[in-house]
Amino acid sequence: MIGDSEFDRDTAVTRREPGVYTVDLSAGWTIINAVNGGYLLAVLGRALADTLPHPDPFTVTAHYLTASQPGPAVVRTETVRTGRTLSTGQASLFQYDDEGNEIERIRVLASYGDLATLPDDVRTTATPPAIPPLERCYGPDDAPAPVPGSSAIADRLLLKLDPDTLGWALGAPSGRGEMRAWFGLADGRDADPLSLLLAVDALPPTAFEIGLKGWVPTVELTVHVRHRPAPGPLRVAITTRNLAGGFLEEDAEVWDSEDRLVAQSRQLARVRLG
Amino acid sequence: MIGDSEFDRDTAVTRREPGVYTVDLSAGWTIINAVNGGYLLAVLGRALADTLPHPDPFTVTAHYLTASQPGPAVVRTETVRTGRTLSTGQASLFQYDDEGNEIERIRVLASYGDLATLPDDVRTTATPPAIPPLERCYGPDDAPAPVPGSSAIADRLLLKLDPDTLGWALGAPSGRGEMRAWFGLADGRDADPLSLLLAVDALPPTAFEIGLKGWVPTVELTVHVRHRPAPGPLRVAITTRNLAGGFLEEDAEVWDSEDRLVAQSRQLARVRLG
Repeated sequence: MIGDSEFDRDTAVTRREPGVYTVDLSAGWTIINAVNGGYLLAVLGRALADTLPHPDPFTVTAHYLTASQPGPAVVRTETVRTGRTLSTGQASLFQYDDEGNEIERIRVLASYGDLATLPDDVRTTATPPAIPPLERCYGPDDAPAPVPGSSAIADRLLLKLDPDTLGWALGAPSGRGEMRAWFGLADGRDADPLSLLLAVDALPPTAFEIGLKGWVPTVELTVHVRHRPAPGPLRVAITTRNLAGGFLEEDAEVWDSEDRLVAQSRQLARVRLG
Repeated sequence: MIGDSEFDRDTAVTRREPGVYTVDLSAGWTIINAVNGGYLLAVLGRALADTLPHPDPFTVTAHYLTASQPGPAVVRTETVRTGRTLSTGQASLFQYDDEGNEIERIRVLASYGDLATLPDDVRTTATPPAIPPLERCYGPDDAPAPVPGSSAIADRLLLKLDPDTLGWALGAPSGRGEMRAWFGLADGRDADPLSLLLAVDALPPTAFEIGLKGWVPTVELTVHVRHRPAPGPLRVAITTRNLAGGFLEEDAEVWDSEDRLVAQSRQLARVRLG
């Protein structure tokens, strides 16, 4: 069901034939000139949800191959295996060069299930991130810190950063590879498993708080969706522990308004020193 | 170069044609009756290293589809993209049913690079796991605790568990989702990026220390290889923070003898209560 929200409209895929979908990548989800990787993952996730017998992404891995551009794209999906509890699929997003040749932008391997069928048991030692109330956090439009690198996508997100992790925006990065934020969709659409794929890649890179400038392109991103998020803004905490050899890992945890850990992700990214 | 070690012999793949390899899965890497997932990942990793222009796995994701059996298997690889720094490939391992039909066991999506070309910069906040000296840790053959579930693979590994994370083997699990061990290959073969794919999935499951019994089959495993390991035994620390809805994540860190974080992994596993 495609709702009337910007996110649903802009991630809508049209099935041309079984396993083949067309989509118009919106310019509304770009950061500087790059189409946000989480938005792209949600587009692929929606195509896989249509192809596979299970509705919800449980574990999704994307390898980002070439830079996607706003505009038309084709998603091709393949059902790898279907089981009772889980089904596994693959998807690729393609665009076209000037000669009309297909160029693969992203390849995804994922297993889907049905979150509604999972037992309610929770035995977790994870705790929600310590973050001030939303009204004491800062977004792109707030003083004191306009958030560099937030472009069109900033208008579509509710993104309020913990002032304790905003030093980089004031020229005084903490040196810790940590960032925390409240996250939602600007038009008030509630979170769901698909929008969690966006949430894990929506914050400025931890590298900024480590004190690095320049771009940090994602090589690979894996997301585990662990529970259907409750309505209300999400809290997202991202951390980097190991920056070495020009690469870093960035882990994200997403917590819902009922203090449930709804998604975990890790990405491997390259550090392009600016 | 295939050396004379058990690990190299048992992960050797033979190229039948470009992108098609045969392998004989060894019964020597089984836990109870299951072929170890890390061993299988190393087999696929070796095939991809032959197919791709870059030698080392940087990020490898495997989805475990059906249970592999010792015996003949075929690996089919595909080059997805080749770049200067990284190349991306896909691989699937197949076996045959009684009618001779191919059954896909595992599908892998991976990006490879060359660890030798990376700059030496390290800015990490990660610290090696606190683990007693090897001689004060316990393996399958040691008192006080034979390690349940360690089968043929136990003869091929140097695996010495931190007594602080061995409570489960004595019927007194700590309740913490943590396990730490010294890891190596029993025949003394030094660690390399390929054997790191084995190292991240070689310990008993954290679920045992949480107090769960029964099998914890891996749905998806992603490994990041961050540095070429130095000679000498590795230290492996695995942790689980969130057990919920019948699934858990298990994170592994692998440290070498020079205190370098050489690999990070995360898997999503199902909890089958015994």
